[in-house]
Amino acid sequence: MNAHFAYSVLDLVGTFVFAISGAVAARQRRLDLFGILSVTFMVACGGGIVRDVCIGAVPPVGLSDWRYLGVSVVASLITIGAYPRVRRMRSPVLVFDAIGLGLFAVAGAQKSLIYGNSAELAILLGMVSAVGGGVMRDVLLSRIPAILQREIYASAALLGAAILVGAQRAGIDGPWTPWVATIACVGVRLLSLRHGWKLPVYVNKHPTNSGN
Amino acid sequence: MNAHFAYSVLDLVGTFVFAISGAVAARQRRLDLFGILSVTFMVACGGGIVRDVCIGAVPPVGLSDWRYLGVSVVASLITIGAYPRVRRMRSPVLVFDAIGLGLFAVAGAQKSLIYGNSAELAILLGMVSAVGGGVMRDVLLSRIPAILQREIYASAALLGAAILVGAQRAGIDGPWTPWVATIACVGVRLLSLRHGWKLPVYVNKHPTNSGN
Amino acid sequence: MNAHFAYSVLDLVGTFVFAISGAVAARQRRLDLFGILSVTFMVACGGGIVRDVCIGAVPPVGLSDWRYLGVSVVASLITIGAYPRVRRMRSPVLVFDAIGLGLFAVAGAQKSLIYGNSAELAILLGMVSAVGGGVMRDVLLSRIPAILQREIYASAALLGAAILVGAQRAGIDGPWTPWVATIACVGVRLLSLRHGWKLPVYVNKHPTNSGN
Repeated sequence: MNAHFAYSVLDLVGTFVFAISGAVAARQRRLDLFGILSVTFMVACGGGIVRDVCIGAVPPVGLSDWRYLGVSVVASLITIGAYPRVRRMRSPVLVFDAIGLGLFAVAGAQKSLIYGNSAELAILLGMVSAVGGGVMRDVLLSRIPAILQREIYASAALLGAAILVGAQRAGIDGPWTPWVATIACVGVRLLSLRHGWKLPVYVNKHPTNSGN
Repeated sequence: MNAHFAYSVLDLVGTFVFAISGAVAARQRRLDLFGILSVTFMVACGGGIVRDVCIGAVPPVGLSDWRYLGVSVVASLITIGAYPRVRRMRSPVLVFDAIGLGLFAVAGAQKSLIYGNSAELAILLGMVSAVGGGVMRDVLLSRIPAILQREIYASAALLGAAILVGAQRAGIDGPWTPWVATIACVGVRLLSLRHGWKLPVYVNKHPTNSGN
Repeated sequence: MNAHFAYSVLDLVGTFVFAISGAVAARQRRLDLFGILSVTFMVACGGGIVRDVCIGAVPPVGLSDWRYLGVSVVASLITIGAYPRVRRMRSPVLVFDAIGLGLFAVAGAQKSLIYGNSAELAILLGMVSAVGGGVMRDVLLSRIPAILQREIYASAALLGAAILVGAQRAGIDGPWTPWVATIACVGVRLLSLRHGWKLPVYVNKHPTNSGN
């Protein structure tokens, strides 16, 4: 019961902050009203829909529970209405996005565990919940998803989901576990942004072969 | 029984007209024979497959019922064989596409209701049935889906699905309901094409900041 | 039992060879460590995940069985570690990819039959298992999937799946059936590479209209 309630709160708050970051991205690309609403909804709910389909929780809650759609629409309208103000806030958008990342990774992992799945699946689907919407957004906008190329993003989500699942498996979890896991993910993401941390890229050591 | 039959007829007719419009698009991109068949099948059945996965109707009827594949192959072959004639018909292709849009939106919403889902889910999945195949086509061809940028397309599908679901919820539906809903969607789509109706785009009011 | 075991072996071996080919592609695009792991896993398991979702086998085995993730990670690390050596082997990568194609097409069709689906669905989902991961890779890297444009690739997968399903339906299958079907698919793919076989493309016969 407690886990269900914490899950539900985490998920709706994460939906709102992700929706704000999605609406800003859509607005910047000059999509029309319907395009902004669609991309906002997809960023906010796309990852969760993939998670629900994979664990057999159909229809996915993002589609069947009107609150997710409602939250997305409200976030879109706020962003459209207050755009000149929101636009100046590049940092707040990145912070919102990091908070959404942490909330979704943890809520997604928790839901997968509630449905009786293995630890590995819960960690993977926690990450998919968190980054899935952003990947769909980049695919729709015809660009290589940023998370594949640079920055610590999906790996922070992986960390948050792993802390939650690990604590439960180790029997040391309590009401505070989801918050610790979320804060770890958000913290790593924000620190990596501030300090420019990156994962290794394997550059070509044989320049004479660089033709291909 | 009556609803099932109407649903089945709507869905197969919509598959054929969508398949024709998909085959023309694939042929124009100079895909090979297999590429044309694949894109045609995806435009014709992709949206319905996503809908069926989301409502738990697996295996999706587009994959398990051979008539959908058969209709796609026939539409591909007709388009390949009669291409010079079809090519001159830009308007007929847009009309076919509008009819497919209306039929799929209504049939998709009806199927979601038959599976016992909520009104909101039925409207959303009616729209997804109608526009999903086209979005997949644009994603595969590496372009931003047209429906996100301009024109009244997905919103017309939303209208058709909403009329069907609204009439059923209000208790005023009858054998004519699907047809009225379909005609409303097709009509709005065709009128918007003829008169150049568009949804609002939010342009930048601060030209000095337009660098990013 | 026998069919299950053969299926399981085929599927894991196919995962490994596909993962190698996926890791090489990801490494060439200079993705970071996490990007290489993600694309490798997606090429290796993406098609199977779509197949499992479509036949209702959730959670998909690629996500729930740790061996698939493990095989992908090992293949990524081998490729990163031995890249200068792997890079010189363009032919071996194409051969690996052809073997993965055959194994996945046959294993995917077999799994669909085990779940009690129709012959048509088994053939289609065998092909989807085999080419789905590669299509996702191309979509993520923002390019038109190669299989839609040229070469005999998906059609070889279709052939392998059809031989397996056809033999079972005709009552002439035995322990050798999966191997014959796999070898037919791999053989057609490799022969088409060597001899430059292509499927027909329908070029414009009206050059004066080539403006659009």
